[in-house]
Amino acid sequence: MKIFESKTAPNPRRVRMFMAEKGLLNSVEFVEVDIQKGENLTPEFAARNPMKKVPVLELDDGTCISETRAICRFFEESYPDTPRLLGDNPLEKAHLEQWLCWIDMFFFMPTGMCFQHTSGYFKDRMTPIQEWGEECGKSVEKFMHFLNKHLETREYICCDRFTAADINAFVTVAFARVVNIRIKPGHTNLQAWYDRIKSRPSAQV
Amino acid sequence: MKIFESKTAPNPRRVRMFMAEKGLLNSVEFVEVDIQKGENLTPEFAARNPMKKVPVLELDDGTCISETRAICRFFEESYPDTPRLLGDNPLEKAHLEQWLCWIDMFFFMPTGMCFQHTSGYFKDRMTPIQEWGEECGKSVEKFMHFLNKHLETREYICCDRFTAADINAFVTVAFARVVNIRIKPGHTNLQAWYDRIKSRPSAQV
Repeated sequence: MKIFESKTAPNPRRVRMFMAEKGLLNSVEFVEVDIQKGENLTPEFAARNPMKKVPVLELDDGTCISETRAICRFFEESYPDTPRLLGDNPLEKAHLEQWLCWIDMFFFMPTGMCFQHTSGYFKDRMTPIQEWGEECGKSVEKFMHFLNKHLETREYICCDRFTAADINAFVTVAFARVVNIRIKPGHTNLQAWYDRIKSRPSAQV
Repeated sequence: MKIFESKTAPNPRRVRMFMAEKGLLNSVEFVEVDIQKGENLTPEFAARNPMKKVPVLELDDGTCISETRAICRFFEESYPDTPRLLGDNPLEKAHLEQWLCWIDMFFFMPTGMCFQHTSGYFKDRMTPIQEWGEECGKSVEKFMHFLNKHLETREYICCDRFTAADINAFVTVAFARVVNIRIKPGHTNLQAWYDRIKSRPSAQV
């Protein structure tokens, strides 16, 4: 199996961290794609993922799976003896899904949009709208505030243990530095949780 | 069990259609929430879903699950003898997840944003950015074009059979009428697929 990725981009990091927690990092070959140079925009890449995003998992028979959550789902379902990171029973799985939706919609995506619309990083291939980028930045700060409150009585985001929700939120907090959004000094619960996740070996891959 | 929803909103429709396909509509009580009047913004509602969105599933013990995909996951996992709509094996489940991500990110969400940012429907509680709304409208049309091509050789979006991907895309096509985006006359594959899904009893609930 191969994973086409960009080492410094946040979605590939979410996948690597997920795989590291499952002990599966050595089961795939990682292939670097330079997204700033637009290597993801070629017809060859689009044949693997018509949305032209990294990461993409390519199975040995050439079948491709795009999207972080889909790739994680594949490994969760294919390797049932590895640590379960997407929940163990119907209620846990539903709560995990809820949190992954919340983190994607109200935290990760606004961070990405804030970056794209205020930095001009991809202005060769999209129209940045400064005002929208700034609105997204406010959403990111609001979600951090919400997370800080949520973590007042919890060590982990969901299911009382480490899960993919922690991975996805952790990578987003780290990613938010590119738009100059950092954990506020008063957000002590969020900071303690961040440090807790950062100390895991999977946070270094 | 109760589902707090707004009958005319697209996310509740996705859940109802999913439950109808599983024969589970009668297993819950539906409670109408008037989102235009802001009934979803009250402290009572926020206690059920801090994101203040419909639908919310409330279990008999008071546990709440938000987000369409999370609610669908709950019913998929809790009622394994009903028709499987989220895939049957690791590869199918991953491909379903990929499609649900694509439909949410590149089709459903841009439709919702186009509506919110160009109609002023929620201007009492958000800042509409016309230019962003129009960009989102272009993304919606682009995805319809992509879907039309994808459906050239397929009756259903994923897994060679009816799945949640068809539900979510179908509801989005219907929803796009509110921003005056309709299936183009040349998009015959998309139209044939739309008519196919529309003829299912679940499309009427």
